[in-house]
Amino acid sequence: MNYFSTSFTLGILGGGQLGKMMLYETRKWDIKTHVLDPSNEAPCRIAADHFQQGNLMDFETVYNFGKKVDVLTFEIEGVNIEALEKLESEGIKVYPSAATLRNIQDKGIQKQFYKDHQIPTSPFKVYKDKYALNEAIVRKELHFPFVWKSCTGGYDGKGVSIIREAEEVIPLSEGACIAEKLIPFKNELAVIVARNPSGEVKTYPVVEMEFHPEANQVEYVICPARIDDAVAEKARALATKVSEAFKHVGLLAVEMFQTEDDEILVNEVAPRPHNSGHYSIEASYTNQFEQQIRAILDLPLGNTDSKVAGVMVNLVGAESHTGPVVYKNIEKILAMEGVTPHIYGKKETRPFRKMGHVTIVNKDLNKARKIAEEVKKTIKVVSK
Amino acid sequence: MNYFSTSFTLGILGGGQLGKMMLYETRKWDIKTHVLDPSNEAPCRIAADHFQQGNLMDFETVYNFGKKVDVLTFEIEGVNIEALEKLESEGIKVYPSAATLRNIQDKGIQKQFYKDHQIPTSPFKVYKDKYALNEAIVRKELHFPFVWKSCTGGYDGKGVSIIREAEEVIPLSEGACIAEKLIPFKNELAVIVARNPSGEVKTYPVVEMEFHPEANQVEYVICPARIDDAVAEKARALATKVSEAFKHVGLLAVEMFQTEDDEILVNEVAPRPHNSGHYSIEASYTNQFEQQIRAILDLPLGNTDSKVAGVMVNLVGAESHTGPVVYKNIEKILAMEGVTPHIYGKKETRPFRKMGHVTIVNKDLNKARKIAEEVKKTIKVVSK
Repeated sequence: MNYFSTSFTLGILGGGQLGKMMLYETRKWDIKTHVLDPSNEAPCRIAADHFQQGNLMDFETVYNFGKKVDVLTFEIEGVNIEALEKLESEGIKVYPSAATLRNIQDKGIQKQFYKDHQIPTSPFKVYKDKYALNEAIVRKELHFPFVWKSCTGGYDGKGVSIIREAEEVIPLSEGACIAEKLIPFKNELAVIVARNPSGEVKTYPVVEMEFHPEANQVEYVICPARIDDAVAEKARALATKVSEAFKHVGLLAVEMFQTEDDEILVNEVAPRPHNSGHYSIEASYTNQFEQQIRAILDLPLGNTDSKVAGVMVNLVGAESHTGPVVYKNIEKILAMEGVTPHIYGKKETRPFRKMGHVTIVNKDLNKARKIAEEVKKTIKVVSK
Repeated sequence: MNYFSTSFTLGILGGGQLGKMMLYETRKWDIKTHVLDPSNEAPCRIAADHFQQGNLMDFETVYNFGKKVDVLTFEIEGVNIEALEKLESEGIKVYPSAATLRNIQDKGIQKQFYKDHQIPTSPFKVYKDKYALNEAIVRKELHFPFVWKSCTGGYDGKGVSIIREAEEVIPLSEGACIAEKLIPFKNELAVIVARNPSGEVKTYPVVEMEFHPEANQVEYVICPARIDDAVAEKARALATKVSEAFKHVGLLAVEMFQTEDDEILVNEVAPRPHNSGHYSIEASYTNQFEQQIRAILDLPLGNTDSKVAGVMVNLVGAESHTGPVVYKNIEKILAMEGVTPHIYGKKETRPFRKMGHVTIVNKDLNKARKIAEEVKKTIKVVSK
């Protein structure tokens, strides 16, 4: 198949920042794109050859959009799977496949998939609704503390809570959920696996999520993770196993816990480019978005090694600021060594809204980490 | 000034591959852009917020386009300078300035500028037309061989010829020209200088153009140049001097000769991102297009050092192929280590048309150079 400067068309469901960064790569290779997103102000609005506004969960919309493309992918999991299945049955290539997405989209099914495939994960129970969850608490089948996760719709920390007492159940949403054992862990790690339809597989180096000591929020994504080589090897091998179990095509971001005794447990996966791989744009030989394109188009996968160390900081809207966005002090961080901000293009900021990210690269990881701290202290996402 | 996700608008005259690569950076920072280009199929057609078709040499077109933007730049020298001057007088920021472009656009004026500013360059004479050139030959004021250059309109090797005998003058164009002494040189080098309106200046490492031993055509752009440190220092210092003499703002690519006795002579300059800086997308901490944006918006300049060594190969249309383009064996070069093709998006190939480039990066320059040779042997730009 000839993709470059031809009428071949790649369809992308979702037009947010991940899609936007993917479009840098389709532009670089002059691959024609169609993008579907519910918002007319989506970051992918420009740079796609054709943009369409529409509901990603609507069968007809997704089906009709997909009929006009040669290969269909998504940058968000919340898409209509039945439409993907019908498109596949009619010969459209959908990567990752509808079957893979079925095993991932619902977190209850995803956890059961790990169990069925002997993939280490924290012990859990699935509850069909909040009523069933409450009943299990009353019957003392479920003990505090536990991690509650909504089976669907979770994103960017939404749909996940640590429940320490009965009262904390009250504000949870009504739908199906899982309750997971709260595992004390040393590190939260992630590995991105790339796999193409021909079966070529490559993993990126292990990255580490460094948490704020008090706020318990991810502050920095660090590549490479500051862990033993043996642990890193184990994490990459496990991530590969997960990708193969899912028969996944494209990028799969595998989030994992490193327990106190150096066990690796799979937390959850995202079947697409991922926040934990943004560092790769500046640090890696092949960035995750180019790799995604290579994988879904069955091209040879690129080198996943890093040229330099990378640290990534998310740019989220400051608390108590809502309105037209201002990136305060951005010129100050541009004066720091090896600093690249990425601005997603959302015109309005809201508390904790993901507005962009900043990558800091350096030959010396410790220097990059120090500069990242300066970046975090300096730039503020506020409203006018 | 607040550039990021605001109504601030950057205007770009010219919508070719340089503009296209600049747009990756404006997208990364969500800076609003308007682009003007004569072709409705220009590579910048998408990814700009607003694209306008129009003649870059027409006063009214350029003036009216420029009135709607806050900062105006160009990615090609052939633009209407009078319009730039009028825009400047009305408060639009034009970078590089009209005055700088006046000293560069006409090669006769550019050479005289070097002479006036004690910038070493090969000896030359300016002739107001071909008649005057012929007269100088007849009067034996001008001796063979010499280098003929058209004062205007030269681009990608057009408008330059080595003249070894009287007959070779016949096919030359009629207009004003210069005749330069043919200087035997060891190396052709280039340095990109970035300078912002506040006067901050940075130079990129010296790159080397490696010529095909027989065809006398540039085959590889190599960074860093394989030359002595002292020569490299001298070249960077000279390039800085040239940029300052021009009071240049933005990127200035300074092409130079290293003579047999290690003198450095300025050949010519381009007041914009340049083919010799394409390696920087993959190899440098700050690529030349991001640097251009930083410079013209008076932001702090980024680190010009390289993360890794880089070699660049141009992708030009194969001889005797005209028509819809096919990048033959592109999947083979994608399997080679550290190889990134860039496809400019021209749908039709013609003999020697610049259709894209390929960058090869590696920690080891010699390895990158070897892989570049493989790339050159493998990929072919042909028609269907």
